[in-house]
Amino acid sequence: MTAQEPQDPAYESRVRASFDKQTFMATIGARLTRVAAGEVDIEVAMRPDLVQQHGFLHAGVLASAADSACGYAALSLMPTGAAVLSIEFKINLLAPASGERVVAAGRVLRAGKTITVCRGDVTAYAGSSERLVATMVATMMTVRDRGLTD
Amino acid sequence: MTAQEPQDPAYESRVRASFDKQTFMATIGARLTRVAAGEVDIEVAMRPDLVQQHGFLHAGVLASAADSACGYAALSLMPTGAAVLSIEFKINLLAPASGERVVAAGRVLRAGKTITVCRGDVTAYAGSSERLVATMVATMMTVRDRGLTD
Amino acid sequence: MTAQEPQDPAYESRVRASFDKQTFMATIGARLTRVAAGEVDIEVAMRPDLVQQHGFLHAGVLASAADSACGYAALSLMPTGAAVLSIEFKINLLAPASGERVVAAGRVLRAGKTITVCRGDVTAYAGSSERLVATMVATMMTVRDRGLTD
Amino acid sequence: MTAQEPQDPAYESRVRASFDKQTFMATIGARLTRVAAGEVDIEVAMRPDLVQQHGFLHAGVLASAADSACGYAALSLMPTGAAVLSIEFKINLLAPASGERVVAAGRVLRAGKTITVCRGDVTAYAGSSERLVATMVATMMTVRDRGLTD
Repeated sequence: MTAQEPQDPAYESRVRASFDKQTFMATIGARLTRVAAGEVDIEVAMRPDLVQQHGFLHAGVLASAADSACGYAALSLMPTGAAVLSIEFKINLLAPASGERVVAAGRVLRAGKTITVCRGDVTAYAGSSERLVATMVATMMTVRDRGLTD
Repeated sequence: MTAQEPQDPAYESRVRASFDKQTFMATIGARLTRVAAGEVDIEVAMRPDLVQQHGFLHAGVLASAADSACGYAALSLMPTGAAVLSIEFKINLLAPASGERVVAAGRVLRAGKTITVCRGDVTAYAGSSERLVATMVATMMTVRDRGLTD
Repeated sequence: MTAQEPQDPAYESRVRASFDKQTFMATIGARLTRVAAGEVDIEVAMRPDLVQQHGFLHAGVLASAADSACGYAALSLMPTGAAVLSIEFKINLLAPASGERVVAAGRVLRAGKTITVCRGDVTAYAGSSERLVATMVATMMTVRDRGLTD
Repeated sequence: MTAQEPQDPAYESRVRASFDKQTFMATIGARLTRVAAGEVDIEVAMRPDLVQQHGFLHAGVLASAADSACGYAALSLMPTGAAVLSIEFKINLLAPASGERVVAAGRVLRAGKTITVCRGDVTAYAGSSERLVATMVATMMTVRDRGLTD
């Protein structure tokens, strides 16, 4: 991963404004904790209403945070007026997600004119220990002229 | 996909009881609408707090419902005392998810001793029309003797 | 999967001509056994130089055949002058691939202006028995104006 | 990725012997260029019989090399007597693969008792330049007591 050159100098405020429209992020208590060119982190705190049957964070919560982190990492490098859509993502669950919080780190691997590929690693934090609990690779699309923005 | 033989005759109540422990399913308003051997459907109604920035259902909501549908389709064929864990899943988003509700249909493609592979198709319903909006293939694992059940 | 409407009436000869340029298909002995609108089958006969360490067909052989079957199923629905590129694919290996031959069946799930998503099921044949040994979901891209065709 | 502890001190000879049984690797001219604990590189030189319709290395060639690199990275950490099988892999194609050769670098992300997850990055080399052309995440399984080894 190399340093990325943003095409829109106002990318940070644009990412933050779009994230605020993702009501689902608020529903799971997700917060945008880092926005840089090609790099976006999203944090989700453990909550009893986000778990699967064994008390771990539901894989869907991890996937939701990683998908948004990847999508916004991609959007941060897109030109003004373009919108981002998820084409597909795959996530491998490496360990049960417990602890106080998880951080999904979206990073652009390659930004093309139409297709951007991102990695999204999810790390769980418990006290002073941390553990990689999931890894995603996602394909994002730059959409123009469909009445969508951001 | 062929008819599947359950090893646990009480698979339906077992799946329903485990689903009820997935608090995240309640958080997104997901309901278990079909439980058969190797086949589980989960329905999520559109809600304003489940969307992404363009007002469509967030891809993470679709993935969450499809992951649980696949996981419980797999669990329905597992022996008593075993638990199910998601190893990985990939989802392709085929069309924006709008309408009144989506149904994620989890179907076992192959049930092995340790690994079960499932397909999860997500269909959106709007009035009398329906549309395939996403398709998942997921790998589930049968876990024994780790202090986990269902 | 619904019936698909080809935009190029000469799609079959176009697919066959492009397949013939894929020298790697000849290298693995792959043959194009079916070309319809949105549906392409590719057959590979078992050969001792195509196996992995246990004597089964290498997963890469299955992936190669399924990728080409998906790509050509997608190309069969593309307009004249466009080219197809693989964006990504995922394959789940369901059973060891033995027997006399495998057939990879590429089918278009959704054909969009830029992105086409296909499923590729690989079936192994041994005598009178058949077995699904792998399933792929692939994302294909319609490329225009890059100096590429087919 | 942290340093990995091999369980079988003879892992290198074991990996090399198993690779030599993968006749398909010889068919595509693949060479094992690095074997360390949890890390295996496989190199494939460009050849005119390995390409797709535009003259780039076929995505199936990249996937084949990356799958074997991931599988052997996983095997290098497995106990004596166990065998490795590919459960699934996904590969994103980031750029057309041209140049003189590609190297698929398989690296273990997490080695569990039954499931090992690996990343496989494929880099193309042309003269003094190099380019990441594909990235894979693969799930490998440790198989015991099925009459298979390595």
